Amino acid sequence: MRIGIVGSGAVGLYYGARLQRSGQDVHFLLRKDYSAIMRSGIRVRAPDTSFQIGNVNGYLDAKEIGEVDLVVVSVKSTSNEELPELLQPMLKAGTIILTLQNGLGNYEFLKAAFPAYLVYVGACFVCLNRVAPGVVENYYLGSVVLGSDKRGERTQTDSIAKALELARIQCKVSENPHQLLWEKLLWNVPFNGLAIAAGEISTDLILSSEVLIGLVRGLMEEIVLGAESQGLKIDANTIDRLIKETRSMGSYRPSSLVDFLESKPFELESIWGEPLRRAMESGVELPKLETLYRLLKILCIPCD
Amino acid sequence: MRIGIVGSGAVGLYYGARLQRSGQDVHFLLRKDYSAIMRSGIRVRAPDTSFQIGNVNGYLDAKEIGEVDLVVVSVKSTSNEELPELLQPMLKAGTIILTLQNGLGNYEFLKAAFPAYLVYVGACFVCLNRVAPGVVENYYLGSVVLGSDKRGERTQTDSIAKALELARIQCKVSENPHQLLWEKLLWNVPFNGLAIAAGEISTDLILSSEVLIGLVRGLMEEIVLGAESQGLKIDANTIDRLIKETRSMGSYRPSSLVDFLESKPFELESIWGEPLRRAMESGVELPKLETLYRLLKILCIPCD
Repeated sequence: MRIGIVGSGAVGLYYGARLQRSGQDVHFLLRKDYSAIMRSGIRVRAPDTSFQIGNVNGYLDAKEIGEVDLVVVSVKSTSNEELPELLQPMLKAGTIILTLQNGLGNYEFLKAAFPAYLVYVGACFVCLNRVAPGVVENYYLGSVVLGSDKRGERTQTDSIAKALELARIQCKVSENPHQLLWEKLLWNVPFNGLAIAAGEISTDLILSSEVLIGLVRGLMEEIVLGAESQGLKIDANTIDRLIKETRSMGSYRPSSLVDFLESKPFELESIWGEPLRRAMESGVELPKLETLYRLLKILCIPCD
Repeated sequence: MRIGIVGSGAVGLYYGARLQRSGQDVHFLLRKDYSAIMRSGIRVRAPDTSFQIGNVNGYLDAKEIGEVDLVVVSVKSTSNEELPELLQPMLKAGTIILTLQNGLGNYEFLKAAFPAYLVYVGACFVCLNRVAPGVVENYYLGSVVLGSDKRGERTQTDSIAKALELARIQCKVSENPHQLLWEKLLWNVPFNGLAIAAGEISTDLILSSEVLIGLVRGLMEEIVLGAESQGLKIDANTIDRLIKETRSMGSYRPSSLVDFLESKPFELESIWGEPLRRAMESGVELPKLETLYRLLKILCIPCD
């Protein structure tokens, strides 16, 4: 399987490196890490293994990658408008598009931009930080859960799942991509948001404050309500489980905090704005999410 | 001068103790600290002096205090509705009412409740914590600035100022009580608010975060705009000065945080709600203050 990785931040580098290490034909669209990766390859430090891959097929121009069987989309949602031009040269009949992006709106955007192609959501329940150019740390092994609206594409789902499993990435298949995205929001909304808004703090500090734990729970309860407003059901027990799992992650900096600290736009709309709007359109008020969204909008200077 | 102190938290105990130590006739309405103070007096630790006063005139019932020349009101604004009944038995012709309370609305409340009496605002620019029953620590000496709407009451202003100065409390006289209250909000709005909302943190931790310093400045700029919407003028240089002074305070817990940590209602409406409403009624939007107010309202469980 010829695989193209579009978006070589922590997520793209990590999954791409694992796929390549398992012998698959991976091609990375690179930007800021290009020279470091072409020189020294990609290094991954994970709980189960640490490894380095060399001979990386890295490109600065997506056109040079050419057609692939699978496009993994791992750019931030704030760069979505660049995707139609970037992906077009990589597509051929039957190419699968897999978005590993956070939040709501990316899946719909890709389906609308590429109506002739099968688009999958891959929800990555994982902790990753890109700690230096070409170097990714994985603190929580997690899994990727796949889902797509289109039915009867079992073969294609199987082929992605097989590629991931070959790379020893735990993979599950879900029927409903929207369910997956809301389940991922359950973590991202409180932890990515409060990590910024409470003064650039890591997850362990969030969980050392009663106020912030209360807000984490309150926001999670609102995401459960938001999901319900979309006809989805999230098990309320998930809240306790996620908080417990987050304690085990130690001093983790969520991706939005990393973006914020680098003065880059974070995913304000896809993680906080879009779920709020969808719930409101369904007549459901989520005042804690609304307040956090307002606060993050004030803080996100480069988001404008 | 016979003086009654209504509200014996940090502020009431501190000023009352200083007044009594200077030989003035002070009477304290006490509640939770009654037995400790009747047994061991009041202890004050301040940068210029540490002292203890015994033989405290303490009462559990305001009626027992009887008529006074000056009533110092230092209850939290959340208890204002109790004031008419508490103060009535202490009033005689010419009694002056001095509110040392935080935020907006208290002055107007007292003027409306006691139209026959002269009401003063005393803005305390000071750092106080009640660290144990009857024990107050003062970290920043500060001053009290007096103001009242009523003109031509020079003698009465002088008598309060004299009482305070006798007690070695630095005292200034301003023409405009509203100006004073907004100037005090300049500090209270960001620091009292963020100390709670950013996860129960003291002022030094607020000032160790770029995000939170940015919010402090943004909120202060909005308070300047809010004051302008009321026809008042706060010098914008005050912002830098206050941030600098706050750095020198060290690890200070603002009073609202102390209330919050004790699961007591904090002054949500007088510090955040009322200035927001007054600015909005004058057609001025203060989005950062509005967001902080919403967040604090969510967090203030006992405020309802």
